[in-house]
Amino acid sequence: MNHILLIDCPDRKGLIFTITQIVFGANLNITSNDEFVDRQRNHFFLRAELAGEVQPPHLVAQLQAVLPPEAHIRLVPERKKDIVVLVTKEHHCIGDLLLRHEYGDLNANLLAVVGNYAELETLVARFNIPFHFITHEGKTREAHDAEMAQAIQAYNPEYVVLAKYMRVLNPQFVEQFPNRIINIHHSFLPAFIGANPYKQAFERGVKIIGATAHFVNNELDEGPIIAQNVIQVNHAQSARDMAQAGRDVEKIVLAQALKLVFSEKVFVNNNKTIIF
Amino acid sequence: MNHILLIDCPDRKGLIFTITQIVFGANLNITSNDEFVDRQRNHFFLRAELAGEVQPPHLVAQLQAVLPPEAHIRLVPERKKDIVVLVTKEHHCIGDLLLRHEYGDLNANLLAVVGNYAELETLVARFNIPFHFITHEGKTREAHDAEMAQAIQAYNPEYVVLAKYMRVLNPQFVEQFPNRIINIHHSFLPAFIGANPYKQAFERGVKIIGATAHFVNNELDEGPIIAQNVIQVNHAQSARDMAQAGRDVEKIVLAQALKLVFSEKVFVNNNKTIIF
Amino acid sequence: MNHILLIDCPDRKGLIFTITQIVFGANLNITSNDEFVDRQRNHFFLRAELAGEVQPPHLVAQLQAVLPPEAHIRLVPERKKDIVVLVTKEHHCIGDLLLRHEYGDLNANLLAVVGNYAELETLVARFNIPFHFITHEGKTREAHDAEMAQAIQAYNPEYVVLAKYMRVLNPQFVEQFPNRIINIHHSFLPAFIGANPYKQAFERGVKIIGATAHFVNNELDEGPIIAQNVIQVNHAQSARDMAQAGRDVEKIVLAQALKLVFSEKVFVNNNKTIIF
Amino acid sequence: MNHILLIDCPDRKGLIFTITQIVFGANLNITSNDEFVDRQRNHFFLRAELAGEVQPPHLVAQLQAVLPPEAHIRLVPERKKDIVVLVTKEHHCIGDLLLRHEYGDLNANLLAVVGNYAELETLVARFNIPFHFITHEGKTREAHDAEMAQAIQAYNPEYVVLAKYMRVLNPQFVEQFPNRIINIHHSFLPAFIGANPYKQAFERGVKIIGATAHFVNNELDEGPIIAQNVIQVNHAQSARDMAQAGRDVEKIVLAQALKLVFSEKVFVNNNKTIIF
Repeated sequence: MNHILLIDCPDRKGLIFTITQIVFGANLNITSNDEFVDRQRNHFFLRAELAGEVQPPHLVAQLQAVLPPEAHIRLVPERKKDIVVLVTKEHHCIGDLLLRHEYGDLNANLLAVVGNYAELETLVARFNIPFHFITHEGKTREAHDAEMAQAIQAYNPEYVVLAKYMRVLNPQFVEQFPNRIINIHHSFLPAFIGANPYKQAFERGVKIIGATAHFVNNELDEGPIIAQNVIQVNHAQSARDMAQAGRDVEKIVLAQALKLVFSEKVFVNNNKTIIF
Repeated sequence: MNHILLIDCPDRKGLIFTITQIVFGANLNITSNDEFVDRQRNHFFLRAELAGEVQPPHLVAQLQAVLPPEAHIRLVPERKKDIVVLVTKEHHCIGDLLLRHEYGDLNANLLAVVGNYAELETLVARFNIPFHFITHEGKTREAHDAEMAQAIQAYNPEYVVLAKYMRVLNPQFVEQFPNRIINIHHSFLPAFIGANPYKQAFERGVKIIGATAHFVNNELDEGPIIAQNVIQVNHAQSARDMAQAGRDVEKIVLAQALKLVFSEKVFVNNNKTIIF
Repeated sequence: MNHILLIDCPDRKGLIFTITQIVFGANLNITSNDEFVDRQRNHFFLRAELAGEVQPPHLVAQLQAVLPPEAHIRLVPERKKDIVVLVTKEHHCIGDLLLRHEYGDLNANLLAVVGNYAELETLVARFNIPFHFITHEGKTREAHDAEMAQAIQAYNPEYVVLAKYMRVLNPQFVEQFPNRIINIHHSFLPAFIGANPYKQAFERGVKIIGATAHFVNNELDEGPIIAQNVIQVNHAQSARDMAQAGRDVEKIVLAQALKLVFSEKVFVNNNKTIIF
Repeated sequence: MNHILLIDCPDRKGLIFTITQIVFGANLNITSNDEFVDRQRNHFFLRAELAGEVQPPHLVAQLQAVLPPEAHIRLVPERKKDIVVLVTKEHHCIGDLLLRHEYGDLNANLLAVVGNYAELETLVARFNIPFHFITHEGKTREAHDAEMAQAIQAYNPEYVVLAKYMRVLNPQFVEQFPNRIINIHHSFLPAFIGANPYKQAFERGVKIIGATAHFVNNELDEGPIIAQNVIQVNHAQSARDMAQAGRDVEKIVLAQALKLVFSEKVFVNNNKTIIF
């Protein structure tokens, strides 16, 4: 099984040589290799795909011995990620994910869908994926989020995907999944932060609208951006027309972001991403 | 000479019939026709290109007689607009406009360039266009803007184009040219309003940057948007790289917006535009 | 119920006046209106949305009385179209159409899916749409096409959609549905006509790939183009990677084209389309 | 002065280690590094930016000693390229290049412009660049091309840029500049190869047009593609309108391609390019 080696550490001369020496010594072949140095932070990032008989703990130990002590070293097998998806009422993103999952295009095991409304239960059931309906009605945000978290944690997912989950998650929830929650926001962030971005876009009279997939942190719509895309609109389109046109962008951008994250091609570097 | 008929008025049934009846009665041919109704305001907009022997005052009077009294009716000959361009130090937009003007692609007579720095005088002189250097140093904004306005008004331009003029214009200046000042802003508005948008974009870690051409009113970067476009960027690009990449978008978007405005294809509808 | 009026005829002065006079006389309101004149053919095209008490046969007769005898006049109610979809093995386009149909986003009644393979039967059944498996094995093209046509005609559809139906249809089939068969081709036509366009694109080393939705006529991949879109690719992508990346473009372009056709926004003008 | 190291050779295990070992031993810092392996050809490509005291002949000799004998090793200083530009009558590409050159944005020394018509002499003279008018009238293609080549070779350029040079160059000319002639073709190749691509695009009724920058070899419009881009068009645009709209794409795509080539970011790999 192929492995992906992910390293980030303070930059210094000779890092690529140091790392590839260990890899070559372990008789492994690097089939793909990417590096980036953030010159502002003087920080080095490397992603390498390794073919051959990888012995993970041994290889990581060898790398730790020669790299700076602050180095983060991850060696992950190339395999599907376990995910849980959160939804509210809109079908387009979850529908697209269900289809991709069904046909092996998602690079993930979609373990369950959790919704704060019951609307999407039928759709999810058609693809034989468990659906959990956890209403927020009559509950505090904290109580509801805790109930959601419990349902999610039962599946022990590597990532939580917000496929048009239309509620803000509280800090206790977010902290359980650091850089492991991915959201699709229906605007070209940082334009139109917050509620009703299509209405805001219509009222401002923009000629282009977009969507943004990002990791969720505790600042609303402020997490590291993974992918963005846009389409042109015009004066003849209502806010509702823009929302409809935006759906296709949303589902495609979310799928692109998930593909990148699930392939271990995304480093979070402070509040930004590095995409290899 | 062909004419363009521009009408906006409260909507009511039969407006197209009413208008085309007059046009047909005047023995004119409509070679192109566009209408739009803003359903929120219940307001009608029409742009028609007329071929034939147009008698402007007579035709407008005939239309006034049959249209609602609030109707705005304009009948303009198809000809180049007179413009003055304002610049600071950056060459890419003014350079592009000078080339288009030289080869008849701008649909305008570029009467003069006014700069608050002298840097671009040589470039402008190469194309035999008058350049006025009016420094802002040692002057209040009001005094400088008044001096600029005086220099501009001497040319009696129909439009003032801000081709990377990097100063805010005061209300007295703006009011002299209502919906006749066109600016290119170096971001995808409303993202990154204000100073240093490329630095803001870099720091936010966006994956797409853009440019926005808009009419100038007294709210900074809030005027009606005419045209926008974007390009993809990535983590490896510095704020400076983004600025460089953005220049091509800026010059193309500005030229697109000017082409639309100078062809009388843009209605301002409250704080938005209708583009036919 | 609103109606859409579609007229094309040889151009002459006063056509808009002539038409809107009849419409106004019938006490109808034009809520949207588009015209185009093909100057090469000197041919006029109009699409108007009419609100009010439309009396179709009477209105068409009135229009016929005043328009040139060659005029094509259609007056269609604003309602969903009846369609049948043809597939082979690929799931992405039919999956997307099934989701849109399920949630009322397709502006069509998807009556049945017909496949020359059985692979997609399960998916289609999940959405409770009839699936007809009609193998081409052991049959001549003519015999197979005739069998397909018979199955399709039983539903009396207004449009036949080829959602990655990977066989050429013979002229007898095509002639049964003139300008009523819509295909999605997996290249940016006219580049890479014929088989394996992604392989062709990979071998040519293009930097952009695309998809084309078009009406089917009897010249392979030569019918009138309705919609096209593209995405960027690079040297690191194999033909297979390009095919995977292209799927999202294919499904979005097909959906865009269907939305335009089903809203009666597409005129076929010789071998080209006019899109209002 | 920084240097760029460019290596391509048959792939084998440990190449990155082998190369970085030499670089590290020479006390150089790799500030940017890209690799690619063409799996079909089993061929390895590397581009590295080196900071430090580079001793070119010594470093290359060290690398040759450890790399496969078929390896191509180039070590080039980071500096502007010397170029000559060929033109016919159209101004938009050469105008854009002159502006970029004037302001140091082209990463090249534009030594001279050679035209087979005299139209652009005035424009070029405004930027104080030598212009050579070499008419093709009354000459065989071979004689004209030989005269052009002689004028060009006098400047000893590293690259020849065809900025809308509208004549086919004969093989003797092309062979003098292998992978060193860059052309901008006014279509989205391989669509609309040959003459009048905008007319072809208009007649086919495409919804998107484009431009392609490519190296020139002896098959017309078949050389390795460097960059492509597109814009949307519609039924209302004539072939002439499309040509006008296409000009902006042409000039931007050509500039993008030149930036890539002049930064040594382009490998030619058989008839395709690898862009780092």
